[in-house]
Amino acid sequence: MAIVIQKFGGSSLADSSCIIRCAERAAAARRDGHRVVVVVSAMGETTDDLIALAAQVTDQPSQRELDMLLTTGEQVSIALMTMALHRGGMAAVSMTGAQIGIITDEFHTRARIRSIDTEALQAELDDGRIIVVAGFQGMSSEGQLTTLGRGGSDTTALAIAAALGVGGEAGAGMCEIYTDVDGVYTADPRIVPNARKLDRISAEEMLELASLGAGVLHSRAVVFGQKYNVPIHVRHSGKPDRGTMIIRETPDMEDVTVVGCALTPDLGRISVRGIPNSPGMQGNLFKRIAGTDAVVDDIIQTESGETANISFMVDHRDLAEVKVAVEKALHDAGAGEMAIEIGLAKVSAVGVGMRTHAGVAATMFAALGDAGVHIANITTSEIKISCIVPKEQGEKALRAVHDAFGLDRAHQQRPRRPDAALRRPVT
Amino acid sequence: MAIVIQKFGGSSLADSSCIIRCAERAAAARRDGHRVVVVVSAMGETTDDLIALAAQVTDQPSQRELDMLLTTGEQVSIALMTMALHRGGMAAVSMTGAQIGIITDEFHTRARIRSIDTEALQAELDDGRIIVVAGFQGMSSEGQLTTLGRGGSDTTALAIAAALGVGGEAGAGMCEIYTDVDGVYTADPRIVPNARKLDRISAEEMLELASLGAGVLHSRAVVFGQKYNVPIHVRHSGKPDRGTMIIRETPDMEDVTVVGCALTPDLGRISVRGIPNSPGMQGNLFKRIAGTDAVVDDIIQTESGETANISFMVDHRDLAEVKVAVEKALHDAGAGEMAIEIGLAKVSAVGVGMRTHAGVAATMFAALGDAGVHIANITTSEIKISCIVPKEQGEKALRAVHDAFGLDRAHQQRPRRPDAALRRPVT
Repeated sequence: MAIVIQKFGGSSLADSSCIIRCAERAAAARRDGHRVVVVVSAMGETTDDLIALAAQVTDQPSQRELDMLLTTGEQVSIALMTMALHRGGMAAVSMTGAQIGIITDEFHTRARIRSIDTEALQAELDDGRIIVVAGFQGMSSEGQLTTLGRGGSDTTALAIAAALGVGGEAGAGMCEIYTDVDGVYTADPRIVPNARKLDRISAEEMLELASLGAGVLHSRAVVFGQKYNVPIHVRHSGKPDRGTMIIRETPDMEDVTVVGCALTPDLGRISVRGIPNSPGMQGNLFKRIAGTDAVVDDIIQTESGETANISFMVDHRDLAEVKVAVEKALHDAGAGEMAIEIGLAKVSAVGVGMRTHAGVAATMFAALGDAGVHIANITTSEIKISCIVPKEQGEKALRAVHDAFGLDRAHQQRPRRPDAALRRPVT
Repeated sequence: MAIVIQKFGGSSLADSSCIIRCAERAAAARRDGHRVVVVVSAMGETTDDLIALAAQVTDQPSQRELDMLLTTGEQVSIALMTMALHRGGMAAVSMTGAQIGIITDEFHTRARIRSIDTEALQAELDDGRIIVVAGFQGMSSEGQLTTLGRGGSDTTALAIAAALGVGGEAGAGMCEIYTDVDGVYTADPRIVPNARKLDRISAEEMLELASLGAGVLHSRAVVFGQKYNVPIHVRHSGKPDRGTMIIRETPDMEDVTVVGCALTPDLGRISVRGIPNSPGMQGNLFKRIAGTDAVVDDIIQTESGETANISFMVDHRDLAEVKVAVEKALHDAGAGEMAIEIGLAKVSAVGVGMRTHAGVAATMFAALGDAGVHIANITTSEIKISCIVPKEQGEKALRAVHDAFGLDRAHQQRPRRPDAALRRPVT
């Protein structure tokens, strides 16, 4: 009687037959004796359609009203999913985020979960019902409907798992994330044809891959799972195969230096030169940038006399907004100039084994050198090495790194049976 | 600073440009200094589309889940309507039925309103905001989402009007029902080309016409308006013209014998013969029928020795269901037989003036006789006379009755200025 959380994304819920198929997976878990909570996204392109509808009315919709609009998408899904479960003879009940007591802060369109009242959930589970919860949404303490922003439904699933004590010290239960890919790969198979599906990956590695844009799961959800030690199973909603387990790091994982690699395309580099290096300068600069929605990464500062040079990477689509923010910061500082380069990409290798294995960086640089790839910049973290390369060399660079670490070969990576470390797996 | 409730139906909200146009009407009322509450239905065919979606999943959807599904339709409308008001520079806020505290009983898909908490409403109105409320929906005291069934959004509008004290003893304010027709006509203009739009009609007359299927407003909403003395203005959402005021009866209304006439097409007659006339027999029969959703009308009973003959009218589409119910009642009684006629229609004349004017029935029968219409049955109420006629003679009968009472001529009906009796009209 472990608790199983099953989350189905929009691509798994494209139409009524997809919903019926997903309902069958939930029913199967229930028939196996598990206590089942289903978390659903809006069907297919519903959220985009609703945003387009709002855009027809106004180009500056209120964020509160956007949330009022968008929360309907998941509400449609929970009703239909519950009907599909009833059709299959299962006891089931739908619940909105508000009904289930998902209390968030008051920041519309990007709210964060503050608490989940598990009383109603537990009562329904005790009665043997499958609970179908609307993902992506909650309610502020003032009773306003809120949405959780990108990756919101994954976050809902993990937050419910954590609140119900899935994983944790007791170690029971599982959060299954159903999507339209087979699992987590050693690299994007569209770019690296011999990329291999991973049976398992540590939460830290997944987090690095997710933040590189390579993950099938949003980094917020991975953080939740990591924090509360919830095992996550990423798998395909239309196939019976096992996917990839995201689990707490185990000692044998360090046998492998690199578990996966990723390409972040379409990056620009903003370089600020000659800005006076006074206390608070960096704080002001990045406060200005934080006022945009852009993600900046790979920040490098060098000093030159009284002034500093700072460079960082930004996605192409955020460049214009960040440029304006930096101009304001330079205006505040009264000095300094900005240069913008475009057409860059980032290739990264990730693995918890890097901590204990030397020579990982050397292997990567040698592989890129042999492939004739120009390295514009290098940044490293404890379990990640990233190189900035010309965009047009990005895919070649990714394949070179994938080959260099032998990621297509399973034997090297997993010396033990993959299932051995899984706790109470559910299929 | 009267309170104005504006209700916009689905046909007035077909697309984003319609929504923007309706928002402009609300904004105009606000600019005129009124306190404005907008009640909206789901856009266009949304409700039907959602029901079709449910039908793809199951042919027996749970009523609770249907409500979960259908309440999203109005929620989309309130968000978009509020965005449109913001775009026009108006302060406005959307509210679901649950947020506004519309508490209903627990009967899903046909819930009845028990109470409305006006505190939140009043606070927003005091702050000068236009409140956009989702029609058709509420919440049970257990926190379940419910819908109000047919005419639900009209009922929401009237219930909010009553709760806010619109009309009533103070006599201030108005409930405006925006729809895709100009108002209430003396007869259906598609059948009677010289039918005339009424400037005003009494709530009792409107109620009779609505129950005949001829009204533009659901009878539940009319009952609400009548009970709480809320003046209702039925008007076209796309035209500036005044529509029809539904108001409390005034003495001068009795100057006119007949205010309108209506045709109810596609009726069947069920006749039960030879059923033992024991105490409780009728009760059992109509309890069986009440178990269906069918509306029966024009019940006539005649006695014949120990047994009774009972006949009544049923809409064609409900005939099959009622037939089964009657068969069960006959089985309970252990005797009696049923006959079913189809292809009938009902033509009715309505007017509060009938109470004080003699000869109305005679005029009607004579008109039908002159037109060669066969009268199969006659029923009367205090302010209505109905004749059952062959379906194929229905339209001819309606035109004959309309002519006989001179309904195309305004001077006969309203000797005074139409506006004279209106209380604080709003345009």
